[in-house]
Amino acid sequence: MTETSKTDEAIDAKTGWPERYYAVIFTAQRSLSGDDMYEITADRMVTLAQQQPGFLGVESVRGDDGIGITVSYWTDRDAITEWRGHAEHMVAQAMGRQEFYDWYRIRIAEVVSERAFMSDNIVESHTAD
Amino acid sequence: MTETSKTDEAIDAKTGWPERYYAVIFTAQRSLSGDDMYEITADRMVTLAQQQPGFLGVESVRGDDGIGITVSYWTDRDAITEWRGHAEHMVAQAMGRQEFYDWYRIRIAEVVSERAFMSDNIVESHTAD
Repeated sequence: MTETSKTDEAIDAKTGWPERYYAVIFTAQRSLSGDDMYEITADRMVTLAQQQPGFLGVESVRGDDGIGITVSYWTDRDAITEWRGHAEHMVAQAMGRQEFYDWYRIRIAEVVSERAFMSDNIVESHTAD
Repeated sequence: MTETSKTDEAIDAKTGWPERYYAVIFTAQRSLSGDDMYEITADRMVTLAQQQPGFLGVESVRGDDGIGITVSYWTDRDAITEWRGHAEHMVAQAMGRQEFYDWYRIRIAEVVSERAFMSDNIVESHTAD
């Protein structure tokens, strides 16, 4: 429990997230095989991750070329370590290496600064046309 | 130049990247407008970023729903600050807010851990079918 002091820091009023938190940046190339099992497994892992202590959120995008970036956010490194060692997640990780991915890279990073922009026109631009 | 001591640390033999470095996680929703200018501007910004001191690399994916994640990697926070203040980049940022994006979120994070996987079958799976 080396990192739990981080969670004692001030909470961001807008998001409810702690001021300091961690990102897991997962960049991966999907293989050409295992589509059905991949979808089921990926959906299940998001559901499971959301139930883990310390989970804050996830952003995930995959392009037409099969390269995807998933960034998940966690309160501290212990939470990330726990999730990495989750029994069902470990099975999925093995399937990922055997079947789903040609390659992947996982980086753990401590978020030290954050800012956001939202357009005034976001409602109009979404309902136009 | 508060962070330059980071660049004195050991260099990862595999990538040539420093052991500790920073990620800028840019998550954004494209608007429905400005396609041509967006492509030109985005390409130009990648070219420019690659020429900046402290730039290490970039990964970028956009899905069919217009949500994209771009992660760029830098040796230190000063390099990120310099890039943010680059004159041509500032023009592009303003265009981004006025035209290209409904919303975006930018997080700066210090990478503290990294691992990678590459399939033994990567050559075969790319040349099969």
